[in-house]
Amino acid sequence: MADLELPRRGLMFILSSPSGAGKTTIARRLLTAEGDALAMSVSVTTRPIRPGEVDGRDYHFTDQPRFRQMVAEDAFLEWAEVFGNLYATPRAAVMQELAQGRDSLFDVDWQGAQQLSQSSGTDVVSVFLLPPSIGELEHRLRTRGTDSEHVIRGRMDRARAEMSHWGEYDYVVVNDDVDACFAKVRTILAAERLKRARQTGLIAFTRGLVG
Amino acid sequence: MADLELPRRGLMFILSSPSGAGKTTIARRLLTAEGDALAMSVSVTTRPIRPGEVDGRDYHFTDQPRFRQMVAEDAFLEWAEVFGNLYATPRAAVMQELAQGRDSLFDVDWQGAQQLSQSSGTDVVSVFLLPPSIGELEHRLRTRGTDSEHVIRGRMDRARAEMSHWGEYDYVVVNDDVDACFAKVRTILAAERLKRARQTGLIAFTRGLVG
Repeated sequence: MADLELPRRGLMFILSSPSGAGKTTIARRLLTAEGDALAMSVSVTTRPIRPGEVDGRDYHFTDQPRFRQMVAEDAFLEWAEVFGNLYATPRAAVMQELAQGRDSLFDVDWQGAQQLSQSSGTDVVSVFLLPPSIGELEHRLRTRGTDSEHVIRGRMDRARAEMSHWGEYDYVVVNDDVDACFAKVRTILAAERLKRARQTGLIAFTRGLVG
Repeated sequence: MADLELPRRGLMFILSSPSGAGKTTIARRLLTAEGDALAMSVSVTTRPIRPGEVDGRDYHFTDQPRFRQMVAEDAFLEWAEVFGNLYATPRAAVMQELAQGRDSLFDVDWQGAQQLSQSSGTDVVSVFLLPPSIGELEHRLRTRGTDSEHVIRGRMDRARAEMSHWGEYDYVVVNDDVDACFAKVRTILAAERLKRARQTGLIAFTRGLVG
């Protein structure tokens, strides 16, 4: 018998971690494995486009006046200013995905996660990835390039600040082994899709059972 | 690198379904697959022991005065009277399992699930299994034996009454294919173990990260 899939509402899957804890790798593997069922949310930004970037794929590039107007129109689920540039998650695109039963992936820091949780409540599932140890995190941050001690210290401080917010997430996974970590994150996504409250098709389906 | 497992609090995993929807099969497969990590909660009952049953394995058999005394002592997480016999879930045994990071499996109806959810809150994860169709459920109930039309009608009525409570559960899985259903139920259990709130080892672990 075929595996029966009822219509469901999509979910907003948030991955956060300090840099060096493997979030980008896990996000890429998730997107590949899930295909059409999961798409990375494309942010709006006012920062200039860089060589190799594609408007609409990497970001929706816009200018400050248009961005400010969208803020005023409540067109964003969350927004933030980083080094003078503005970044935001557009509401309409995400809502359309959810309504069509597709999940959106968000690679955001603790502030983005907090704002999305506040604006979108039960649609949000948040996962925090932790490195296996502080030594391992430092090792990963050091082997990234030939940065100065000062730069590495700054990264470690930012990583510690980000990690201090693990307690605000629904799930926490320690990224000790990337395959095991990926399997766990995918298990969380699969289980959350089975939550009764997301399965919008159940009302019609059970009408035929309960009579 | 080994897959790192932090200390965690166990959870109370409730499976409910109408009879004929495959709950017993799924429960048995879960217990086999999970080994020491998951144990069926053993109920206390006042009904007489039957041939082949083992006290302490199938039930904890007791008499009415002792049962009533345990009710008065708040020794049960839930209890109910069925056809003149009393049944209950003993609190101390379950709490000990949870504290040691092992999960307890409960095969209870919607009333048991409701009482356990009320007494145990966030320790509870509840899953309702539905049959793929009313025709399939009737087929399964008919092929169980040579029962009269009257008996089958009664079973169908009870199944419909039980199914009307699907909306009170955390997760709903349609048992269309037993392998797919088992995989989904196991996925729910695996994901729920990763909930931040159950991972009691995180506070000590992150102390080493955040500094």
